[in-house]
Amino acid sequence: MTTFNTPNPDFAARIRESFSRQPFMEHIGAEISLLEPGAVDIAVSREVSLTQQHGFFHGGVVGTLADNASAYAAFTLAPASASVLTVEFKVSFLSPADGDGLLARGRVIKPGRNLVVCQSDVFGLRGDEEKLVATGLVTIMVLQGRDDAPAPAKIQSA
Amino acid sequence: MTTFNTPNPDFAARIRESFSRQPFMEHIGAEISLLEPGAVDIAVSREVSLTQQHGFFHGGVVGTLADNASAYAAFTLAPASASVLTVEFKVSFLSPADGDGLLARGRVIKPGRNLVVCQSDVFGLRGDEEKLVATGLVTIMVLQGRDDAPAPAKIQSA
Amino acid sequence: MTTFNTPNPDFAARIRESFSRQPFMEHIGAEISLLEPGAVDIAVSREVSLTQQHGFFHGGVVGTLADNASAYAAFTLAPASASVLTVEFKVSFLSPADGDGLLARGRVIKPGRNLVVCQSDVFGLRGDEEKLVATGLVTIMVLQGRDDAPAPAKIQSA
Amino acid sequence: MTTFNTPNPDFAARIRESFSRQPFMEHIGAEISLLEPGAVDIAVSREVSLTQQHGFFHGGVVGTLADNASAYAAFTLAPASASVLTVEFKVSFLSPADGDGLLARGRVIKPGRNLVVCQSDVFGLRGDEEKLVATGLVTIMVLQGRDDAPAPAKIQSA
Repeated sequence: MTTFNTPNPDFAARIRESFSRQPFMEHIGAEISLLEPGAVDIAVSREVSLTQQHGFFHGGVVGTLADNASAYAAFTLAPASASVLTVEFKVSFLSPADGDGLLARGRVIKPGRNLVVCQSDVFGLRGDEEKLVATGLVTIMVLQGRDDAPAPAKIQSA
Repeated sequence: MTTFNTPNPDFAARIRESFSRQPFMEHIGAEISLLEPGAVDIAVSREVSLTQQHGFFHGGVVGTLADNASAYAAFTLAPASASVLTVEFKVSFLSPADGDGLLARGRVIKPGRNLVVCQSDVFGLRGDEEKLVATGLVTIMVLQGRDDAPAPAKIQSA
Repeated sequence: MTTFNTPNPDFAARIRESFSRQPFMEHIGAEISLLEPGAVDIAVSREVSLTQQHGFFHGGVVGTLADNASAYAAFTLAPASASVLTVEFKVSFLSPADGDGLLARGRVIKPGRNLVVCQSDVFGLRGDEEKLVATGLVTIMVLQGRDDAPAPAKIQSA
Repeated sequence: MTTFNTPNPDFAARIRESFSRQPFMEHIGAEISLLEPGAVDIAVSREVSLTQQHGFFHGGVVGTLADNASAYAAFTLAPASASVLTVEFKVSFLSPADGDGLLARGRVIKPGRNLVVCQSDVFGLRGDEEKLVATGLVTIMVLQGRDDAPAPAKIQSA
């Protein structure tokens, strides 16, 4: 894997703090399981609430993890004064998203001052085995000088 | 809008029944708000549990609705004996996903026996106003002769 | 169609001039057939040199037109001092790209200072009839203060 | 790299023959430089005719190679009686497509009877150095029992 340098020595604390302010991650039970410069893994355990009609993980959960793992992978390389947002993502589903859990590995392919391109591979977990169930490409924008803080009150209270 | 014919006169009942068997839709509070041949709308109301760190709807929710609205739009045109699955989707985020609710409009662009291509536009709702916040292209596979039933027990009990 | 304002009153001359400096467009016989703020059409006539093994237009030609029509549609809305480049594009093939010619309609969906999202629809032409053969989403980056001039000599002479 | 088995022992001859019937490949000077089960490389040398206004390879050329390398990688795994077509592709541009040549490496990620998902990485070549300039995901449909022959006369004569 490529090794990246980050301008933010506190990237790990920063990302855990940002992640903790994403209520949707708590809603689906997602947790960060790896956090390095240019690389973030996010995992969920299997809960019926995350499934579709065939008992597999819902494609929306797969896409959510692919998007978020890549976004935070990009965020590891951003200056402390910047925040990030997803411009677009594409995910291809390769196998039914089955297993005791799902793990998305977001990796920076191409860092950049304004745009970062990442790849996320999503695996179904069963015991010690991993099976690739989806892969995606994610484009992330770096917002220089924009804090990753809550939005203004009018939006919060919406 | 293009008008499509469906070989399944009971498509509406079938899709509502399939949708009701997707626990993840209940988990995010999603409901079908339009259901016609080749067209399905899915909406959620704003809940804090669906948001990200800036108070907007999480991109994963936007992607989930885009994927599912298109998948069910494709399903409206399938024979009663077939089921569908998403092959891949791509979503571009155009504006912060803000508002009292989100509405995804899935529309069939190109029907087909084996593959259906759909477009989903996702709108943020505030009062009577709609604002386009994302757009996506979704490829759906039609599984001829495959019932949309629950998967075998070993998967259910996973 | 949405109407856009452009900060560059000479956008049309500028885009024709830029297009004329794309040797690949001449190589495939492409011409601009519509040029308005936020909207550019590019067409080719059928030549055997543009086809694949079944006698249809090659998918690469379809993708090229989809990309370029969107990129120039975005460029119509850029300041005179900026240039543009494609960040990524996705194209879905809907029907065999058949006909006497191909026409790609690039349209801005979402303008922006740094990023512009466009949609391109590609049509096969036969007499007065048009048939949609592909659709794509294209992300364009606006390079503020970067002239659309030839690159340095070392690249030119490569 | 994953090793794949192919049901067609003559896959190499078949793909070279099919490639030779793609006039657009000759038009851009493309050649197959690697041909194994699940893996196809396609390369072009730098010609001014393949460039855009900054002297780099045109994005359409990059996309063409990404699409075609993946399509033929999928084709290596198809039965002798089948043909393939591209359902959709997405390509992210990572760096200016510069160099003495371009090389697209198409690799099967997920084989399948009906659909094959591939990844293409495209490199700019300069001397012995390779630089990744683009990456893409490509969905290929396998048309069982459909010969990869020229289309009917009415299309050929179009």
